[in-house]
Amino acid sequence: MIRIGLDAMGGDHGPTVIVPAAKRALQYHPDLHLVLVGQADVLTPLVQKHKLPTDRYTIHPATEIVAMDESPALALRNKKDSSMRVAINLVKEGVVQACVSAGNTGALMATSKFVLKTLPGIDRPAIISALPTLGERFSYMLDLGANVDSTAQQLLQFAVMASSLVSAVDNIPAPKVALLNIGAEEIKGNALVKETAELLTNLKEINYVGFVEGDDIYKGIVDVIVCDGFAGNIALKASEGIAKMMAQRIKENFTRNFMTKLAALIAAPVLRNIKRQFDPGRYNGASLLGLQGIVIKSHGSADVKGYAHAISEAVREVEKNIPHLIGAQIAKILKDISPV
Amino acid sequence: MIRIGLDAMGGDHGPTVIVPAAKRALQYHPDLHLVLVGQADVLTPLVQKHKLPTDRYTIHPATEIVAMDESPALALRNKKDSSMRVAINLVKEGVVQACVSAGNTGALMATSKFVLKTLPGIDRPAIISALPTLGERFSYMLDLGANVDSTAQQLLQFAVMASSLVSAVDNIPAPKVALLNIGAEEIKGNALVKETAELLTNLKEINYVGFVEGDDIYKGIVDVIVCDGFAGNIALKASEGIAKMMAQRIKENFTRNFMTKLAALIAAPVLRNIKRQFDPGRYNGASLLGLQGIVIKSHGSADVKGYAHAISEAVREVEKNIPHLIGAQIAKILKDISPV
Repeated sequence: MIRIGLDAMGGDHGPTVIVPAAKRALQYHPDLHLVLVGQADVLTPLVQKHKLPTDRYTIHPATEIVAMDESPALALRNKKDSSMRVAINLVKEGVVQACVSAGNTGALMATSKFVLKTLPGIDRPAIISALPTLGERFSYMLDLGANVDSTAQQLLQFAVMASSLVSAVDNIPAPKVALLNIGAEEIKGNALVKETAELLTNLKEINYVGFVEGDDIYKGIVDVIVCDGFAGNIALKASEGIAKMMAQRIKENFTRNFMTKLAALIAAPVLRNIKRQFDPGRYNGASLLGLQGIVIKSHGSADVKGYAHAISEAVREVEKNIPHLIGAQIAKILKDISPV
Repeated sequence: MIRIGLDAMGGDHGPTVIVPAAKRALQYHPDLHLVLVGQADVLTPLVQKHKLPTDRYTIHPATEIVAMDESPALALRNKKDSSMRVAINLVKEGVVQACVSAGNTGALMATSKFVLKTLPGIDRPAIISALPTLGERFSYMLDLGANVDSTAQQLLQFAVMASSLVSAVDNIPAPKVALLNIGAEEIKGNALVKETAELLTNLKEINYVGFVEGDDIYKGIVDVIVCDGFAGNIALKASEGIAKMMAQRIKENFTRNFMTKLAALIAAPVLRNIKRQFDPGRYNGASLLGLQGIVIKSHGSADVKGYAHAISEAVREVEKNIPHLIGAQIAKILKDISPV
């Protein structure tokens, strides 16, 4: 039996999306029990409305809610009975094996780090997510914005963490790990990237394959792309931004007049298929890697399908016991680097 | 009469694209004279084939070619008679008022900086380009990869240069200038961004409006987006990458079987219109800002229309005398900051 806690009040849509997503996840995973953390008077009518099987979930009370724009430091200090904080506490206490939140990313990161602590040998957690590619597999990129001003040693830790995750979850023996870089300068990259490249080249535990540029992210040529949180967040959000612009322009073109609407009607099955392929819910669920516990971040605006996918991501990481794998790999590397 | 030099041998396609693009540009701009720099035995048959009006162009000989993957330092040292170097020399000598190259970006930057020098008060040139938006106007972003490891003072210079350019070229009295940042951290951004924000807030010559995130780039909410060359290059190339992936997926979906091909046939006018809107040639032509001269970089793979657009960009900057405007604005700010 896998037990997962949900910050049932977090995200743009809160429990109105999370409760039906919970039902969907319970249907996918017969061994799953969900602990919905939040205000019982809000959650009880919703679980009844959506007919969640009564033996497959628990409502765990939490009176407060962390707002999406709340300061992470203030949330950490003042909201000790928030649905987010209590869900993370349940991971710490071993009541659940993982938790999922669509809430405030900064608060989730700060609270997770404070409550769960990082694994020995890991300075800072990082946010990792699967990205769609032109290839047959996803590529994973980290850090997507948990850290700024990272050191080369921290990027090395990110590489180790991601390699352990992808190896276990996607059954790839030696995932190809690349560093995100730019190609215009003769001696490629900034000081951080150059120093990290040197460290990774000398690390035999990692299948480091060199640099990729921004336009390589979606080609599916590597399994893991490592970067600092500033570059990673910019890359991810710029991609989201242009994808939304393209979708908007396509919509405008197909709704311009009677003839274009007719064309849209005839092309509808194709357009639906394209829309489905680009549904961000298909890869919703980023991990906060490097903690002594599993915390999954859903996109704040995820729909029912997307949030259910984030729960499935938590299930996968529980099944593979990802924090243990990362801890073991880091311990091995630390031992190799400084032998007794 | 405006005289512009073309590095006629540079780029992925070289003179086979550049010569017909030159003809097109001459048709657009009746006051334009083009100096095609390169190997006369290659260029002469092409200008004859494309029937360029003989009084509107000159062929200026240059025996060498800088390869697309050549080391910028080696190109600068060894290729003194390359079409790129000679075209830049012509700007220096005042024979032409601007030059355009689709060649090796690193070599173009290094050679331009060496031959033309930066304007007084400018440490380093930056690459700026217009980007499509959901709004009515383009937004401009810089630096797109000329520099790594920039200082806050350099980002401030980028802001001043871009503001002068956009103000003059797009007739906007006080362009809205923003800094590219990430929003996940409580105290937003890395050390560089925070320091630059403080400098820009105190600079009355610039209409600084604060931070934008990666997904804001294509919303058209600001006129100028300032970032270091690492982040800018990553944002631009990640956008290119996902746009290509989306285009590829759309194509696959419409060519899957007989029914989808039929749908594509009926939707053809709409699809053509969408393709036209996303044609990168519509905004091809990045400027190397901050030099004592006008140098325009065309995308290496630009087609005839795209390269002609880059020539038009050069014409616009000559008409507005952009280096003079930037120099005057920087001199004014330097005077304000350190009064005698």
